[in-house]
Amino acid sequence: MSALALHPAAQDLLFREARTANAFTAEPVTEEQVQAIYDLVKYAPTAYNQSPLRIVLVRSDEARERLVPHMAEGNRPKTAAAPLVAVLAADNEFHEELPALLPHFPQAKDRIFADRPVREESALLNATLQAAYFILGVRAAGLAAGPMTGFDFPGVQKEFLDGDHTPLMVVNIGRPGANAWFPRSPRLAYDQVVTTV
Amino acid sequence: MSALALHPAAQDLLFREARTANAFTAEPVTEEQVQAIYDLVKYAPTAYNQSPLRIVLVRSDEARERLVPHMAEGNRPKTAAAPLVAVLAADNEFHEELPALLPHFPQAKDRIFADRPVREESALLNATLQAAYFILGVRAAGLAAGPMTGFDFPGVQKEFLDGDHTPLMVVNIGRPGANAWFPRSPRLAYDQVVTTV
Repeated sequence: MSALALHPAAQDLLFREARTANAFTAEPVTEEQVQAIYDLVKYAPTAYNQSPLRIVLVRSDEARERLVPHMAEGNRPKTAAAPLVAVLAADNEFHEELPALLPHFPQAKDRIFADRPVREESALLNATLQAAYFILGVRAAGLAAGPMTGFDFPGVQKEFLDGDHTPLMVVNIGRPGANAWFPRSPRLAYDQVVTTV
Repeated sequence: MSALALHPAAQDLLFREARTANAFTAEPVTEEQVQAIYDLVKYAPTAYNQSPLRIVLVRSDEARERLVPHMAEGNRPKTAAAPLVAVLAADNEFHEELPALLPHFPQAKDRIFADRPVREESALLNATLQAAYFILGVRAAGLAAGPMTGFDFPGVQKEFLDGDHTPLMVVNIGRPGANAWFPRSPRLAYDQVVTTV
């Protein structure tokens, strides 16, 4: 018997059969799909419920043309061709929303997150957790994600964000096309990763 | 019709009904369960398949007694009482495994990750993604996770890790006990998080 409660079909959809896609079909990714993804993954945990992830959906041709030159050369063709591209970023001013997000401890805004360096570190960690939830959420929608950190961070920040937001990654989203991925690479064995004390 | 392919029961198990637990039953978390969690979440993506997450399972009373004093005061009782506690860390020397992990581009070890600061930044980002996958993997096993960043990082590093490893978070794991959580806090609305260009 499996030690997991999650249904095997869901294990496959999210982890075992899902793959990072490098090629996509032309089928559009709808606003409804992105809303459903967000409405699922928004519940996954962050420290103090700070929820610092912000998402810019690059939908217009004009915006796509501004994004592609900032990608590393090897990432440009797939970023140009993906049905939807999302810029994921951390909001370093997330504390402004904290009194609404943490009604049982609204003082956290000033007591814990008054200092910008503290906020930046916390926003980076927690928005990265949320980026992982988002990637799995894309898969939960039956789509493939192609997350990339190979891009000019200051360039993407200047083009699409502002000083309050730090870019984390760019994610191509769509249905996998022909030859969408390499063969699966090996993973570390349990004993290489987990030690017991 | 739902815009998600993931079965509603799996949505509930991983996101909608799962909660960060602050209290647990006495039921042990078995080695088999942790192995099943790892064997699921190991497939989720990291850059260059670098897989930098390392996990220390704190199982002995002696190790638990070393850990608890390094936790923030508010985190000590639950960390002392949880059936299992895991220290999650980023391996800053992950590049040593890269030739095995990335057989189609073994040169990545030296071409991309020769410099320690580059490795530290990449390990932090990618191990944090894997920490999020791990939290959802705990939920996939029908268990509750209690991730915490409120602890003395140098203290935990010195007690349980070495200079090659940076602590990320400590996670309590078990079946939720009585009054395991606060009421769910609000989440940001879609329009507060997602913009379209």
